[in-house]
Formats: sequence, structure tokens, C-alpha cells
Amino acid sequence: MPLHPDRLLPPEPAVRAIARRLYRSVQALPIISPHGHTDPNWYADDAPFPDPATLFVKPDHYIFRMLYSQGVKLEALGVPRLDCAPVESDGRKIWRLFADHYHLFRGTPSRLWFEHSLETVFGIEERLTSANADSLYDRISERLGQADMRPRALYERFNIEVISTTDAASDPLAAHDRIKASGWTGRVVPAYRPDAVIDPSRKDFRGEVERFLAVAGAPATFAGYLDAHRSRRAYFKERGATSTDHGHPNARTANLPRDEAEALFERVLKPEVTAEDADLFRAQMLTEMARMSVEDGLVMQIHPGSFRNHNPQLFAEFGLDKGADIPTRTDYVHALRPLLDAFGNDPRLTLILFTLDETTYGRELAPLAGHYPALRLGPPWWFFDSPEGMRRFRELTTETAGFYNTVGFNDDTRAFCSIPARHDMARRVDCAYLAQLVASHRLEEDEAHELAYDLAYRLAKQAYRL
Amino acid sequence: MPLHPDRLLPPEPAVRAIARRLYRSVQALPIISPHGHTDPNWYADDAPFPDPATLFVKPDHYIFRMLYSQGVKLEALGVPRLDCAPVESDGRKIWRLFADHYHLFRGTPSRLWFEHSLETVFGIEERLTSANADSLYDRISERLGQADMRPRALYERFNIEVISTTDAASDPLAAHDRIKASGWTGRVVPAYRPDAVIDPSRKDFRGEVERFLAVAGAPATFAGYLDAHRSRRAYFKERGATSTDHGHPNARTANLPRDEAEALFERVLKPEVTAEDADLFRAQMLTEMARMSVEDGLVMQIHPGSFRNHNPQLFAEFGLDKGADIPTRTDYVHALRPLLDAFGNDPRLTLILFTLDETTYGRELAPLAGHYPALRLGPPWWFFDSPEGMRRFRELTTETAGFYNTVGFNDDTRAFCSIPARHDMARRVDCAYLAQLVASHRLEEDEAHELAYDLAYRLAKQAYRL
Amino acid sequence: MPLHPDRLLPPEPAVRAIARRLYRSVQALPIISPHGHTDPNWYADDAPFPDPATLFVKPDHYIFRMLYSQGVKLEALGVPRLDCAPVESDGRKIWRLFADHYHLFRGTPSRLWFEHSLETVFGIEERLTSANADSLYDRISERLGQADMRPRALYERFNIEVISTTDAASDPLAAHDRIKASGWTGRVVPAYRPDAVIDPSRKDFRGEVERFLAVAGAPATFAGYLDAHRSRRAYFKERGATSTDHGHPNARTANLPRDEAEALFERVLKPEVTAEDADLFRAQMLTEMARMSVEDGLVMQIHPGSFRNHNPQLFAEFGLDKGADIPTRTDYVHALRPLLDAFGNDPRLTLILFTLDETTYGRELAPLAGHYPALRLGPPWWFFDSPEGMRRFRELTTETAGFYNTVGFNDDTRAFCSIPARHDMARRVDCAYLAQLVASHRLEEDEAHELAYDLAYRLAKQAYRL
Repeated sequence: MPLHPDRLLPPEPAVRAIARRLYRSVQALPIISPHGHTDPNWYADDAPFPDPATLFVKPDHYIFRMLYSQGVKLEALGVPRLDCAPVESDGRKIWRLFADHYHLFRGTPSRLWFEHSLETVFGIEERLTSANADSLYDRISERLGQADMRPRALYERFNIEVISTTDAASDPLAAHDRIKASGWTGRVVPAYRPDAVIDPSRKDFRGEVERFLAVAGAPATFAGYLDAHRSRRAYFKERGATSTDHGHPNARTANLPRDEAEALFERVLKPEVTAEDADLFRAQMLTEMARMSVEDGLVMQIHPGSFRNHNPQLFAEFGLDKGADIPTRTDYVHALRPLLDAFGNDPRLTLILFTLDETTYGRELAPLAGHYPALRLGPPWWFFDSPEGMRRFRELTTETAGFYNTVGFNDDTRAFCSIPARHDMARRVDCAYLAQLVASHRLEEDEAHELAYDLAYRLAKQAYRL
Repeated sequence: MPLHPDRLLPPEPAVRAIARRLYRSVQALPIISPHGHTDPNWYADDAPFPDPATLFVKPDHYIFRMLYSQGVKLEALGVPRLDCAPVESDGRKIWRLFADHYHLFRGTPSRLWFEHSLETVFGIEERLTSANADSLYDRISERLGQADMRPRALYERFNIEVISTTDAASDPLAAHDRIKASGWTGRVVPAYRPDAVIDPSRKDFRGEVERFLAVAGAPATFAGYLDAHRSRRAYFKERGATSTDHGHPNARTANLPRDEAEALFERVLKPEVTAEDADLFRAQMLTEMARMSVEDGLVMQIHPGSFRNHNPQLFAEFGLDKGADIPTRTDYVHALRPLLDAFGNDPRLTLILFTLDETTYGRELAPLAGHYPALRLGPPWWFFDSPEGMRRFRELTTETAGFYNTVGFNDDTRAFCSIPARHDMARRVDCAYLAQLVASHRLEEDEAHELAYDLAYRLAKQAYRL
Repeated sequence: MPLHPDRLLPPEPAVRAIARRLYRSVQALPIISPHGHTDPNWYADDAPFPDPATLFVKPDHYIFRMLYSQGVKLEALGVPRLDCAPVESDGRKIWRLFADHYHLFRGTPSRLWFEHSLETVFGIEERLTSANADSLYDRISERLGQADMRPRALYERFNIEVISTTDAASDPLAAHDRIKASGWTGRVVPAYRPDAVIDPSRKDFRGEVERFLAVAGAPATFAGYLDAHRSRRAYFKERGATSTDHGHPNARTANLPRDEAEALFERVLKPEVTAEDADLFRAQMLTEMARMSVEDGLVMQIHPGSFRNHNPQLFAEFGLDKGADIPTRTDYVHALRPLLDAFGNDPRLTLILFTLDETTYGRELAPLAGHYPALRLGPPWWFFDSPEGMRRFRELTTETAGFYNTVGFNDDTRAFCSIPARHDMARRVDCAYLAQLVASHRLEEDEAHELAYDLAYRLAKQAYRL
């Protein structure tokens, strides 16, 4: 079945008519993608994407975690093991396994993204089944070999105006430099993601900090370490970065006196860091990052609340990002206070908050963002980047924070072909929400049109200073 | 007013039409009731049910807690006191009191279940009022005396395919044996509910453990205690049990080294158990139960998060289950980890999770069930076993866990006549949800039909291995 | 654009038709305002309200916090500084600034209240813009000077039957006496709000207690302090009070032995009170207040869970109530137990609970109110006093607590002109909810009509004993 033109719009005819008008006005706007995880080498190398299984199944933890939850082994899906033991390498077999379990995705956003990609990128309007798995595999494979399916051509076809990657603090950003040197006009900017040199609970923390200091040419003191951040931020900024990103277990911030912060830095560089010291150091560094953002203007993002690698057996066998990261209850009201005391009223700071705990939307995040000039609310994240998740976000934040303390949409994805699908979903769901407001006479339609444009395009560009 | 054929279906005509088609296709499916609290003696004895007040008011804490909350004394409703002081014994008077307060149930599921029973079981289409209380009482009383109103006849009329009772670990299951011996073909299976011998915070814990060990012929060591569980589980399994059930104050699990577990067992058998030891023992035993489930194949259910007997005065006067159990905030992400570390990836285990804390649906339960092969989500439970509760369950879990990590419906009731009403409600609400997905083009109608069947019938049968 | 007659009613035509019928039947009912923050001097003096900026912007933290969150300085909005440094005093300039940022309120209840006031009080049907700011300012200013715009005339025009103010425990209630002495027939009653003499964490606590004991002529012992409460409660009751109100950081209650309570009282009167002692004293005093309510019949309200003055810089410059109070996670199940153990079953007590933590609606508050005879649920409060907030309140509480354990609507406002707007919003949203129940055949329309009346008028009057 082809994609329905009214998908995700409200079923009631009068409301749908309004939603349709709103959606039509923003449907074709360029994509602003200020937060995502595509690989900058794609744009630098412009090499063809490989087979369908490598494109859609192997790297997508949304897809393989669902199959895993129903008893399919990750090895059978071609997910590489850390011990390099053999896993399935026949893309067609992996694809068939995906097709055999396709019903599992009913009612999920993965299904909607996948079918949007199939139709708009590959021209396939059939539903994937065990019966047609081979033929679809062949059709996708064939298309993947064609010139107009390379990353740069797709970037242009997707009407992307600017896209941000996410890059480690010590990353030389060579791919970004190659993109620039190539003369290609696509705008691919890095984002400064220093978690590896900020989180002392990581096994590789000390090694990462050493490398980081070496890259920046800074001494192993707290002052040197902060200078290294300043230097790397400037390096990123020269290459187009407008933001930093911080993925912490919680939203805790601290603002210690300098001597305590220095002593803490010395402690976390030793082996056997206590959990409290690790947590406090992360907390302190969020405030340091905010301080630097006030100086250099990089927009700051905090993504807290994921319990990473909940499944130790899977982690030991397959490593990070295998669908075993689970959200946890997250506090913002107390946690953010030290940072907000220092910079919450500073108009030079933009701090964008994300959450995996939807209970905080109405109770904590909207009231905070509806007060502090420095705060903005990021869009629904990860598990909540879905039609119902986006609807709840608007219903739970708008009445307190309004629309203008939010920042448009983030696709947050490493699945390149799903980018247009995700932005399209967000535009549809926002237009559906706006149409409900218009239909219940809480908003007039001219305002809804302005808002639809702001939510689809303008706010992301403005908030991320792009 | 007769029951409306479209009750609980969405009002928008196009969506309602889809929902109607879906509902019609599952309306008459047999009832799978894998978790409930009906009395096996009903099926064994096949004695008539007593008067209307004893059927509908006295034993139903949904009903009498609402009247109590508005100042009606439990004594006046015939609820027995522990001190055997006299309470109202005139069923007609109790019924009149219920009728006088019937407006309190507006907007509640109790009202919908009651009216479904009245009409489909007793042929009464009038709304209960003070004015018609006596006449309805007479009509119900008269029907209750007739042969086709006995438990076995109703079991058949209700189209029940299989029903599970809930039984204490030391229960000889005599009623179940009598049912089998009678030659009646109804399928009534027990479920292993060992809380009384697992929870050291109960007053009668030591006595229960002694009795339990005696029944199993096992010595009073931890090894003997575990063997007693194995033996009783086998005894239940021989009588048709396919599941165990665990109603704990929280979802904490532990996986202690054997010597620590043995020492803990010795401590909890002494008087003056600490709260921490009691909690740790319950936690340890959940993991032991999972270990046994891996061996014997019994499906495991955890029902955590109820603060039992919140009202000490009422508890002292009337005992357990008087509507004073209150939900509490419940953590799963950290609490379940020891058990999941041991068995979460084991395909032999099915562990079904319930909650009284709806904030965990999207944040914890759906992400966990959408990853771990052993986990499934039980249906909305207790206070949330209602139209809005069921809708929220689907809206908050489906996008992350899909439909196939859920297990259909549980009626969870001791109110026999309400069983068809509860399953009918679940089918309607699920069809309403599916119709919304179809109407917003997130699902196609042929898939929705398959799902309606799965949710109404197949998934319960499959998940509970019935 | 004029206010749409169907605003906030459901868009689906059949449901809207039901909602319209329900709303029409309650639209013109008198307003019962049992909890609010209007100034009794308004009614006593009957002086004209000043300019539009002083009426709508300067005192309304819903308005100025939104502008502040987007970078507008409070000084520019005429909000007075504690250091008396000059702030904008030109009402017209403030009004223009408000108009320039009016789009920020899209989707918020503030917008709906404001436009309802503009049209129904001032006859203005235009949307506020930068372009018409001056002309609207002039029209409002002109009207404010006219006799029928004075507080008493508006009270009558608004069809208020009774309104409660909120007054400090030591307040002599002179304005209330002047209202009475004036012979005006409006009913303005005080409410006993003793937070200042109950919360030892306040800077001015000891001074307030001294003043309080002096006013009551009581000695500085715990017995004297309790007697002072009794005396002041009686004083309030003589002037028409039917309720007390308690705004605590959390819902903790305690019921200490008398000697411990006395010792605690002595400790909290000393400088350097510990946070735990302050918390315990507040907890103890809630139980003492309940004890007095059982004696004197004043209805008790608890408003817990606000983290006051989250922004210390703003607090230092501008003081209390500047939009920087943020909700926090709140527990009721454990916190209320000491009080409920003592008085939860007492039919003489009515204790009305509010929350800023919506997760407690279904999990804690509805189950508690659906059981304890003394408990009732207050309407959605503060940030949740909004169309979506009111809808969630009904959806999350009704199935467990029913409608009759709720108490109608509170406007809770100091913005006089918004009172009719707020009650109108509540009536519309409740009728929309009832219409959904009728349209999905969960309720019959005659019952919905009775409920619409109860929710709009009768329950507030009854619960607050007005």
C-alpha cells in the first residue's frame, strides 16, 4: 500500500482539513538537522551505501532490539561480536529474518520510518513480507548501486539545509575538513561531545583524557584540562560547530569552589574513582561547559537519564548501543540548580534540555523553561520520538512553556534514509496538534500557520544558531 | 437503557466503523482467563450463588470502598468484622443502600461491569435506582435459584476456554482434584502463589513455612525450603498449572551467593526480622523462582507496588482486601537487574510484569520488554483495568514494545459474573485503539484484524502456555 | 476575532452537540470561588482598578514569567525591585512590550483567560498586536474609570455567589469587617492560611510566631501556640471562614507524642533550626490542624510540592511569587499516613488534597480519595489549571475516585477579571469530558446533566461547607 497522504493527521474530517492545510504549508521546507549521528565520512567519501541489511537492519538498534526481544539472536542479524566470532554475513538471509518478523513493528515508529524510506527513497509501495523479501532485497540492492543514491545526492534530494554530526572532543574532524576541501556545498557541521573525557566512570577515561590533553597541547592540571576544552571547542567552532552535547546518567550539576574542583580532578584521574566522585565531576563539568558556552556562544545540550548497557551479558558480547539502554527516573529541579544559579539568567547561554522521563515534561521541564531565559526544551527524545510521544510532549509542555521555549525537531539518528521520514513525522504530528487547537478555538488558523513554520524550520535554526 | 452496541468505541463515525468491524470479529471468541481469583470450589460444588448483595456488593472491594469513601459504614454493607460483631445480614437492605449510592459509580468501570452483568446474565436493562432496587433484587434473586445460573452453566455460557485460579503454595488443591474427578470438561487450572511462605514481614510467616515444609516433607534448611518449592510447583503443574504469581511490595530482586542466601533464610525464620532482611529475602526468592521457572517451564508473574492495608483501623476491624491497598511509585530498571542478569536472556523463561505505577509504562517497562527476550508486559492492572487505563497502556507501551511483547488480557477478578464484562471491555478498548491506528494510517486494516484476534485470544494462550 | 461559542468543546460534531447541551445548562450558574487570592480591600474600598498594565501584566506571574523566559527584563515590565531601584512606570510602555510578545502565549491558558476578559469585561474582540496596542490600552483605560467597572459591580456582574480570600493567621481581617459594615451584600469570606507561623524554615518565623501569640494573647508554650491557633480559627470562622489552607513543600504529616511535639516546638523557636526539625514541625502541625478541623468544622486544604524561589538571583532582586516556583515530585501514600491514621476515617473531617505532580492523580490521590471518608481531591492546580490539565485530571482520577470525591473548581487567582474566564474554562472542559463519556456510552445524558451541575456549582458549595 502506498503511504497515505493524510497519515498521522486527525481522523475527524473538519480537524483533518485544517491539519492538511497546515501540513501542506510546511511539507516541503528544507530540513534543519541540528542534532544527529550520521557519519561525516559518508559526506566526505560519497561512497555508495552497501546492501539492504547493512542499511536497514545491522546498525539500527530500534530494529534489532525488537527482534531480539522476541528470541532472534543478534548473531543471526549480522550484529558483530566483540570477540570477532562469526556472525551472519549474508545480507539476504538477514533481510529474510527481518521480513519474517516484520509484524513485530506494527504500531511502532520504526515501521513508519522504514516504509517512508522504502517508498520515497526506493519507490517501493509494497508491505515487506516473507514472500516478497527476496524481490524487495533485489530492488533495493539495485538502486543502492546507482549514482543518485550516494550520500551527497541523497542529502540534496532530502532537501537538507544543514546537518550536525556528533563528534568526540579529541576527534581531528578530518572528515569535516575533507568535505570542506571537496568544494561540495552541503553544510555538515560537527558538535562537541566530550563525554569520554568528562565521565570518570568509563573504563577508558584516563586514556581519553591523556589523549585529549595531548591533542590540545595542555598540561595535566585542572586549568590545563579546562584550557584543552576551550581549545577543542574553538577548533570545532572553526569547523562550523554551533553546539555541544552532553549525555550524562543524570542531570546533576555542581559549581564547586576552584580548589575543590581541582582536588576533584586529581582524584578522578587516579584508578579506583568512587561513584560519588565520578558523579560530582560530571556535575561540575556541566557547569564548566555552561561557563564556556557563555564565552564562546556554543549552544549546550544535556541528554540525561539513560541507564546504559543494562544487559551485561549482551554488553560483554556485543558492546555499546545494542538496544539495552533503559530510561530512568530523572530529576531536574534540584539537579540543575547549581548551573542555573550561575548562568540561568544569562541571555548569552542557550541550554537545551532533553529527557527520557516524560513525567518531567509538565512537572519540571515546562515550568523551568517557562521561567529561565537560558533554558529551552529539546524535542521528545529516543523512545518518545514517535507519534504518541510527540503528541504528549506538546500536550504536556505547551500550556506552561508555550511553543517558543521549544526548539523544533531533532532527528537524532544514524539511519540516513530515515531522516526525511522522521522530520515528516514531526511535521505531521505538530500540524495535527495545532489543528486540534484551531478546531477547539484555542488558536486561530493564521497563527497556526506561523507556528507550523516555526516548529518545522525556524525555531531549530534560531535555537541552534545555525 | 440497554447496553449500547457501540459502547467504548470511538465516537467519530469513520473510526467507529473500523472499530465495529474489528470488534465484531473478536466479540464471540472464547475467553482465556489466565489470571484471576475465582474460587475453585464454585466449579467443584456447582452450588447456586446466593443473594444479589452477596453476589455483587459484600465481596467486591471496588464497590464497597467507593461507598465507604462517601461515609457508608462497611458494617451496613454486610462486610464481616474480624471480631464477629454483628453486621447487616439483610441482603435486601444492603442492596438498597447500594442503589441509593449508585450515582457514585458514574464514570467508573465498576458501573460498566455491573450493568453488563445485569443485562447479559440477568436480562435486566434498567438502570439501578432507589425506586427499582426492590424489584431488581427480586428478579436477580429469582434467577439465581435457577439451574442455568450455577457456576458450571455460567462457565459454559460465558464461553470460557480455560480459567486459572490463584492458590497458596501449601494448598492441597482438593477442589481442583474434585473438578477433575467429576468428569466435567471445564478447564480450571491452579496458579502457584507462594507469597505467604516468601514474605517474612507477614505475621504468620514462620507458621506458614513450617506448614509448607511439612506438606512437602522437606527439612527446615534453605535447600529443603527450595526443594519444597520445587515439589509444590510440580504438584501444581500436575494439576494443570502453567504459571506462578508473586505479589510483592516492590520489584526488587537479588541473586546472592548460596551461603549468604542460606544465612538470610536462617535469619528470616527467627522472630524480629528486620525490614531489610525481609525485603532482601523476597528479592532473593524472585530470582530463585525464576531459576525454577527456567527448569519447570512455569510462566512467572510479578505484581509489585501495592502498599497493602494503608488504613490500620480498618485493617484491625475488617482485615485484608477492604479497598485500602494503595499503589506506590515502583522502580523496575534497577530492581529487576539481578534477576535479569541471571535469566533475562534465557528463552526458557517467560516473566510477565505488572504495575500500579503508570509512569513506568513508557519509561521502564516498554523499553525493558522491548529488549529482554524473557520479559513480557502484563495488561493494565487493578485501578487501571479500565477504559482510560487500557488506552493509556497501549498508547504508552506500543511504540516501544510493540503488541507482541504484551500478553492479552487478565480479568484478575473474584467477581464471577463480571468476567465476560471485563473481557468485553478489553476487546472494545483494544479495537478502539487499533481503529485509531488504522484511521490515522499507521496500520492497515487487515493487520488490525490479526492484532484484534491476537490481543483478544491468541497472545494470552501463548504467553501463559495454555 | 470574537470568542467562539464552542471553544474548548470537542470538534467531532455529535460529541460537540452533547457538550453544547451540557454547557448551556451550566454556563450561567453562579460562581462559587472557595479558594482564591483576591485582595479583600478591593471589595472593602471599591476603588477603581488602575491602568491596563497594572491590571493585566505587573501582578500576574503567569504573564511576566513567560516574557522573562524569552529575555524580557522584569524591570521593563514594571515589576518592583526590592531595592526600590527604578523600574518602568509607564503603563503604556509595559503594555506595548506585552503586545510585542503576545505570540508567546499561543497555546497557553493565559491567552484564553486574557481574551475572555478583554471581550466579556471590556468588549474588545480584537487580538492584541503591536499595531493595536495603543488603541486597546486607551479603550481599557477609559472603561476602567467607569463606575460599573469597580470591584463590587464586577463581583455582581460576574455572578459570584461567594468568594474566599486567603489570609495570614495573624491578619486582623479588617477589610472583611469593613465589607460587612458597609452593608454590601456580596459574600467575601476569609480562609485561614497559617504557613507563616507553621514553617520554621522561613526567615521571619520567630517574629511571626511572636506576633501571632501576641494577637491571640497566648503564652509561648506549645499549648499556648495551639490555643492561639484555636483562637484565630474561631476569629476567622466568625467572619465567615469555612476553610484553612496549607502550602507546604511536601505532604509529610506526623503525629508525635505530646512531649516530643512540645520539645520540637521549643527547638524550632531557636535560631538555627535544622531542616529536619523544620520539616517535622510542619508535618506535626498538619495533624494538629486536622485535629482542630475535626473540632471546629473548618475544611482543610493541603497544597504541597512547590519548590519556592528556585531562582535565588531573581528572589534577591524581586522577592516572592515571580514565576520561579517549580513543582517537584510529591509523595502522598507514605506522607499522609500519620494524619490519616488519626483522622482519615472521621466523618467530621474534610481534607482536600491538591498536587503539582500529575503522576500522583491515578497512582496515589484517586485511590486514597476513593477509600478514605475524610479525603477529597481538589481540582487541577496552578500549572495544570488549563484545558489539557483539567482533561488529564478527569481522565486520571474519575475511574478510581469517581466524580463525587472531587470538589468542583477553584480559580486560585489574584487576577480578578480572569475569574469568570477560569470558571468558564472549567465548565467547558468538564462538559467536554462528560460529552465524551456520553458519546462512548459510558454515561447517559441525563446523568451527565446532573454531573455538569454538580461539577460547576454544587460540589464546591457542599465540600467547602459554603
